[in-house]
Amino acid sequence: MGQKLALVDIADEWIEGLLGDECAIEHLTFGADLTNLEYHYYEHVALHNLIPAAIEAEKNGADGLLLGCFYDPGLRELRELLQMPVVGVGEATLHTAATLCAGKFSVIVGRNKWIPKMADNARSYGLETRIASWRSLEMSVAQMDDRERAYEAIIREAKVAMEVDRTEVICLGCTGLTGLARRAQQELGIPVLDPVAIGLKVLEFRAELWRLQGVSHSSGSRYFCGSLFWASKPKQAANT
Amino acid sequence: MGQKLALVDIADEWIEGLLGDECAIEHLTFGADLTNLEYHYYEHVALHNLIPAAIEAEKNGADGLLLGCFYDPGLRELRELLQMPVVGVGEATLHTAATLCAGKFSVIVGRNKWIPKMADNARSYGLETRIASWRSLEMSVAQMDDRERAYEAIIREAKVAMEVDRTEVICLGCTGLTGLARRAQQELGIPVLDPVAIGLKVLEFRAELWRLQGVSHSSGSRYFCGSLFWASKPKQAANT
Repeated sequence: MGQKLALVDIADEWIEGLLGDECAIEHLTFGADLTNLEYHYYEHVALHNLIPAAIEAEKNGADGLLLGCFYDPGLRELRELLQMPVVGVGEATLHTAATLCAGKFSVIVGRNKWIPKMADNARSYGLETRIASWRSLEMSVAQMDDRERAYEAIIREAKVAMEVDRTEVICLGCTGLTGLARRAQQELGIPVLDPVAIGLKVLEFRAELWRLQGVSHSSGSRYFCGSLFWASKPKQAANT
Repeated sequence: MGQKLALVDIADEWIEGLLGDECAIEHLTFGADLTNLEYHYYEHVALHNLIPAAIEAEKNGADGLLLGCFYDPGLRELRELLQMPVVGVGEATLHTAATLCAGKFSVIVGRNKWIPKMADNARSYGLETRIASWRSLEMSVAQMDDRERAYEAIIREAKVAMEVDRTEVICLGCTGLTGLARRAQQELGIPVLDPVAIGLKVLEFRAELWRLQGVSHSSGSRYFCGSLFWASKPKQAANT
């Protein structure tokens, strides 16, 4: 569809086959010196790195931006600053999971430390009542490079979520787990969502909705940007 | 993407420009003798009409099905019966609205009578806390043919929703209102969602996710179909 998409920390090999060939990809990053965003402080630094590049991407004609971290870091700040759709893999995956079951779904994260922030997000998205459980692999992002160990831990936690929490859909709650969903789904027999795949497809849909219908996030309340102190005001009025 | 999509009561002129050219469309209907689904009884009859055609569409290779009514009639029954994604314009629009604001959104319906059923749906989708208000045009589906009157009523109710309910996104809660969103958005200055446009884009995304990753609704709890009395079991095990 000739879209130009800005992707933050989404590796080329993760995209394969998910987006149309005509799609132009611009790669942004939270910062090459950061290997993970497991700490609030790292997240702060990462967002500070990202903001100027994200504004530049919109000025250069990007149709939408995807944040490649399940924390959805910067979702709020960037929606204040940008007019194009800003999609977080976390928000996209949680809403998709909610449409895939009538009961509840679980999120498998790397470490317990991640859960409070992600649960805060889920609450603010309005999806708290749909979540059966948060379960942790007790693995850092770096440790997920051991794919077999990560896969086995996913299966272990997912089985507990199914048996104990009665979960009906599993969300992989870290982009570091991308590529393992399909095999896990085969083994578990319930949908397993890959946050990168969901994020990319939702971004594509949202960018098109933006192009076709002019629909992006509302500048009401939280994303209001009328009195931002920026010298150049990158975001137009919502009714353009 | 070469998709084959089954659309229930979505008129050809509503699709224009929203789906790729390679997309094959199969039109299904809730029943030509029904001019609206404003009554629980009509909805029952409509679903009874639709079920055999929907099963046939899946057998003939459809990649997904869209229910063109904001009530999402048959969403549950068809998810029991079908393996392909079943998307309701109501569910798709409400979840999209939730990602477009940090505050709350409103749904504009035809008549007060529609609200309890749609509010029940929103509760079961888990989105109750995100809804600022339900507002009614006090127009039947047939009366919506008077486009100017429908448009003016949308603006009237949306303005009240914005001023009184502090709404940040407007959902048009009837496919009979399709085509009016963009103009209303220009006038109101907040996102206005066309349920047909959102439904079609979400269907496309979900059908692709199904093809690429084998992800459809979970057969856990409500959509469990293991002991359905159907002679032919149209739905395979979820882990195929």
